[in-house]
Amino acid sequence: MTLVNGIEADAVSVQDRGLSYGDGLFETLAVADGLPIAWEPHISRLRNGCQRLRIPCPAEALLRAEATRVCAGLTLGVLKIIVTRGANGRGYRIPEVVNPTRILTTYPWPAFPGSRAREGVLVTVCQTRLSANPRLAGIKHLNRLEQVLARSEWDSHHYAEGLMLDAADRVVEGTMSNLFLVMDGQLVTPDLADAGVAGIMRGLVLAEAPALDMSVRVASVSLEDLRRAEELFLCNSLFGVWPIKGLDGQAYRVGPLALRLRQRLLAQGCIAAQE
Amino acid sequence: MTLVNGIEADAVSVQDRGLSYGDGLFETLAVADGLPIAWEPHISRLRNGCQRLRIPCPAEALLRAEATRVCAGLTLGVLKIIVTRGANGRGYRIPEVVNPTRILTTYPWPAFPGSRAREGVLVTVCQTRLSANPRLAGIKHLNRLEQVLARSEWDSHHYAEGLMLDAADRVVEGTMSNLFLVMDGQLVTPDLADAGVAGIMRGLVLAEAPALDMSVRVASVSLEDLRRAEELFLCNSLFGVWPIKGLDGQAYRVGPLALRLRQRLLAQGCIAAQE
Repeated sequence: MTLVNGIEADAVSVQDRGLSYGDGLFETLAVADGLPIAWEPHISRLRNGCQRLRIPCPAEALLRAEATRVCAGLTLGVLKIIVTRGANGRGYRIPEVVNPTRILTTYPWPAFPGSRAREGVLVTVCQTRLSANPRLAGIKHLNRLEQVLARSEWDSHHYAEGLMLDAADRVVEGTMSNLFLVMDGQLVTPDLADAGVAGIMRGLVLAEAPALDMSVRVASVSLEDLRRAEELFLCNSLFGVWPIKGLDGQAYRVGPLALRLRQRLLAQGCIAAQE
Repeated sequence: MTLVNGIEADAVSVQDRGLSYGDGLFETLAVADGLPIAWEPHISRLRNGCQRLRIPCPAEALLRAEATRVCAGLTLGVLKIIVTRGANGRGYRIPEVVNPTRILTTYPWPAFPGSRAREGVLVTVCQTRLSANPRLAGIKHLNRLEQVLARSEWDSHHYAEGLMLDAADRVVEGTMSNLFLVMDGQLVTPDLADAGVAGIMRGLVLAEAPALDMSVRVASVSLEDLRRAEELFLCNSLFGVWPIKGLDGQAYRVGPLALRLRQRLLAQGCIAAQE
């Protein structure tokens, strides 16, 4: 089911600035038993993104009511929320009166192979780079051509994800996930000040790691750091945590931290129990 | 009038990848007496953009027939063509079968004050930077948040345009136009290998300048180069050529090259005769 500004519909205006310029934001949430998981941090990131782009953010109560409506009866699935600067004709200039467009849609659960979470995944490094812009870094905006190009670099099921670097050869994230390393017994994730999306699951991992006696550090990460790492894993709001068992030919041990974190996040209801 | 895939409509699917990811391209053409101006170079750039993004480009004959239909009876106006990777659900991965979406819409002529072309315009330098990505540079794709943010930096009618730099302090272009400098008697325009849109009017200016005994050079341009320039002007497909008479307090002489180029492009039918 899809709601566009609260009305059941499957289309938006051709004048919508989301289409014209990618002038908007989105959130992708796991849904279990009709309820979106990690609603608060997702809405908080959406609100922050709207502030950064100066788009009036729809009221949380309204979004919540519409999310409840589209997710009703969904045992396991995906909720996508898009907020754009609305339909306002031609030209980059922001109109004086903005009526944002909000779109809530549900999708079937992607049904990742369960082995990925238990046994780890293979990952490759993409040629497509992430461009740097502090004004856009961190938020989940609709300008995603770099991810589309990066994701088009492999089409086999061999790789579950591709890692993206910035122009300065820093490792930033996966095309659809964030990256963590265990180095010298410490948990490290790339700094996203210049590029990348500050994933909700990334935030949950950062928040939960200390409870597992892991100190965490947000830092600049190089390919050399990945080579030296004791453990690597990916995270996002749908699959939760995937250990990386291989990166372009280099093998990594699966877990133990990724598996412990996954268990903890599952137990707290932050990850949808897939099986 | 708007045609979506050849059918009169004013909406596109909420699943369109143009909306989800800005996964597409656009062209903006001036229309005079029912005919789009500079059709061939616009379609050539669209085709090139489709190749770069690996979107199947709609046949030119089809686009031409639809353009003729939407532009019929339009004495002076704007034609916008959008081509996206179509409606394909969730996820960055490009689906095996792509049915691109094409949208052709007309808009009223923006009616710029005629004084801008004759007497020149005032311009400011924007704080928002253009990010660098050679994979996306030059083409007119739908990821335009940087332009939206830059254009939001001024709201008065005082400035007609804002200039954008990249992260390395190189001057790239205006938010909606390309920039030319006259330096040491030579015509110079910024190199767009890393960022920027290769404008159709920019191409026409580069092609016509030698006939006015001007040598042309595509080069890296700094703010210091702008300060030293003898003449500055902007160009795009709608307004043609605008001399810059002032940039953040520094005054420039208006023309003579910009005015001569404008006359030449007007005479050749490359610029819509506005008045």
